[in-house]
Amino acid sequence: MKIVIDAMGSDAAPGVEVSGAVQAIEELGYDLVLVGDEAQIKTELKKYKDYSDKITIIHAPERIEMHEPAAISVRRKRHSSIVLALELLKKEEADGFVSAGNTGAVVCAAVLSLRLLPGVERPGIAIVYPTLTGASVLIDVGANIDPKPLHMLQYGIMADAYARYILHRPKPSVGLLNVGEEESKGTEFIKEAHILLSESKLNFVGNIEGREIFAGNVDIVLCDGFVGNVILKVSESIVDTLFKALKQEIKSNIVATLGAALASSAFTALKKKMDYSEYGGAPLLGVDGRCIISHGSSNPKAIKNAIKVAAEFKTQDVNKHIVEELESY
Amino acid sequence: MKIVIDAMGSDAAPGVEVSGAVQAIEELGYDLVLVGDEAQIKTELKKYKDYSDKITIIHAPERIEMHEPAAISVRRKRHSSIVLALELLKKEEADGFVSAGNTGAVVCAAVLSLRLLPGVERPGIAIVYPTLTGASVLIDVGANIDPKPLHMLQYGIMADAYARYILHRPKPSVGLLNVGEEESKGTEFIKEAHILLSESKLNFVGNIEGREIFAGNVDIVLCDGFVGNVILKVSESIVDTLFKALKQEIKSNIVATLGAALASSAFTALKKKMDYSEYGGAPLLGVDGRCIISHGSSNPKAIKNAIKVAAEFKTQDVNKHIVEELESY
Repeated sequence: MKIVIDAMGSDAAPGVEVSGAVQAIEELGYDLVLVGDEAQIKTELKKYKDYSDKITIIHAPERIEMHEPAAISVRRKRHSSIVLALELLKKEEADGFVSAGNTGAVVCAAVLSLRLLPGVERPGIAIVYPTLTGASVLIDVGANIDPKPLHMLQYGIMADAYARYILHRPKPSVGLLNVGEEESKGTEFIKEAHILLSESKLNFVGNIEGREIFAGNVDIVLCDGFVGNVILKVSESIVDTLFKALKQEIKSNIVATLGAALASSAFTALKKKMDYSEYGGAPLLGVDGRCIISHGSSNPKAIKNAIKVAAEFKTQDVNKHIVEELESY
Repeated sequence: MKIVIDAMGSDAAPGVEVSGAVQAIEELGYDLVLVGDEAQIKTELKKYKDYSDKITIIHAPERIEMHEPAAISVRRKRHSSIVLALELLKKEEADGFVSAGNTGAVVCAAVLSLRLLPGVERPGIAIVYPTLTGASVLIDVGANIDPKPLHMLQYGIMADAYARYILHRPKPSVGLLNVGEEESKGTEFIKEAHILLSESKLNFVGNIEGREIFAGNVDIVLCDGFVGNVILKVSESIVDTLFKALKQEIKSNIVATLGAALASSAFTALKKKMDYSEYGGAPLLGVDGRCIISHGSSNPKAIKNAIKVAAEFKTQDVNKHIVEELESY
């Protein structure tokens, strides 16, 4: 198994990527390719045992920054870590790709370089997120902000394959995010998507409302990339805001400070359960390759888990299942 | 000041409405009209001091349930509490209206009965919500799930008047919810709305992302009713899920249980800060009348605060300011 990593992606690159890569080698034994600034990567690698037999470095003189416009930066920076890493995948010199960099740029470069799987009209970014009853999948969180109803059906089919083979759900339930449960609800776009999904072979349970996402009522939640992107960012910020506000309250009171210290094991356990880094990253579904997009603020564990997911993506041959399923329509 | 209340709206109607009404009389001294099942309302009223000089009851033999389709139920149930209450408003026999019932039915009945303010194309539901830095306004949370760019400008203008006169912000900042901050981001709809807002007299600060909503970076957040509805429901469910999960963790550990008990003052203070009931309800902006829509699970305090907001809506003559502002375009 050989996974290629954009070493320059995250907010703390390349330190986090190198540390995550070392963890992946120690725990999983994969061969890894780190693409990025060679000198910086080497400096980081010196902090660990010598894994030069497991790690190849490919120097990338350019880096696409977080806020660069995706399409332009991918076309201009042909020697960026993202573009060079994807070339390896394209040439099948690697089995999977992980980047915690500019999401738009990864999507754009992946589509340009790897192309879409046969039958797929648009790629989608799926995230695996924690709920009260385990993990669920939300797709799309931003690859396609103005999709057609058919794209939603395809997202359902792709996420279904992913949930079956990576999350090991035998018959994943699929919900369409809407403003109400009744079929008559929603925009024309949503109503048309509802019809396509109802006629599909998916285990489609109908419309679901926003409040059901984190209750874990369905295995897969479908929404357009605009809505998905907003949900993702709102959720992160609410959790952040709540913990910040609680900290403020606790700090202002000595008894509460003591209490919080005693209750800290519960906080830690909850944090672990709600921890995105457990899930490693978001698979980009629909491209002819295996790309995992990690959060810009990923820690080494998240990178390691993303590497693991990229490998499972290959082992389970998720893309083959997606293509077969799409062909059957 | 006379406020009319749909006594049959909330999940715990009419008990919650009657209790909230009594609180409003005791704290604010308004005259109130309770519309609903007369016998049930009278039974509830017996629990309190005699306020028959301040309360009028209007019997409504019908009730629109939470999950009835809005337009059909409003047309069929002409003797429902929502429809009868709004007739009082229409005849100017009351200054404002509060309902914790079927939101769609309230919007539909209000538009049919009160009509829109001159110049307004579509009504919008605004919610006032707690952030780290105080309260902000989010509009629209579900009145109009497929708006045009012009509607977004009008939502901005209406929420601006509301924030100035009810929240007392001298020059409210307005952000357009998008998937990125750059002007080039978003759907065609969002880009067109961005142009209209940029050319307006509003204190428009540009696009904002989902993560900024609860940080309180702007006074007013604009989004379409589909996105707003999802945000509202997702936010409520995350807060719920987090507290539930934390409770589970705390329960499973005796030391943590003790700690949580000691820290409870901090939890209580936070809950109060994050408490929607402090803000009473969501104003329906754009109709020629003053309607406050409260949550179906409102407590008496939320009803009382909604009554207070309906009264301020009248005192501050927000609708006059909205019409004047719209005329100036």
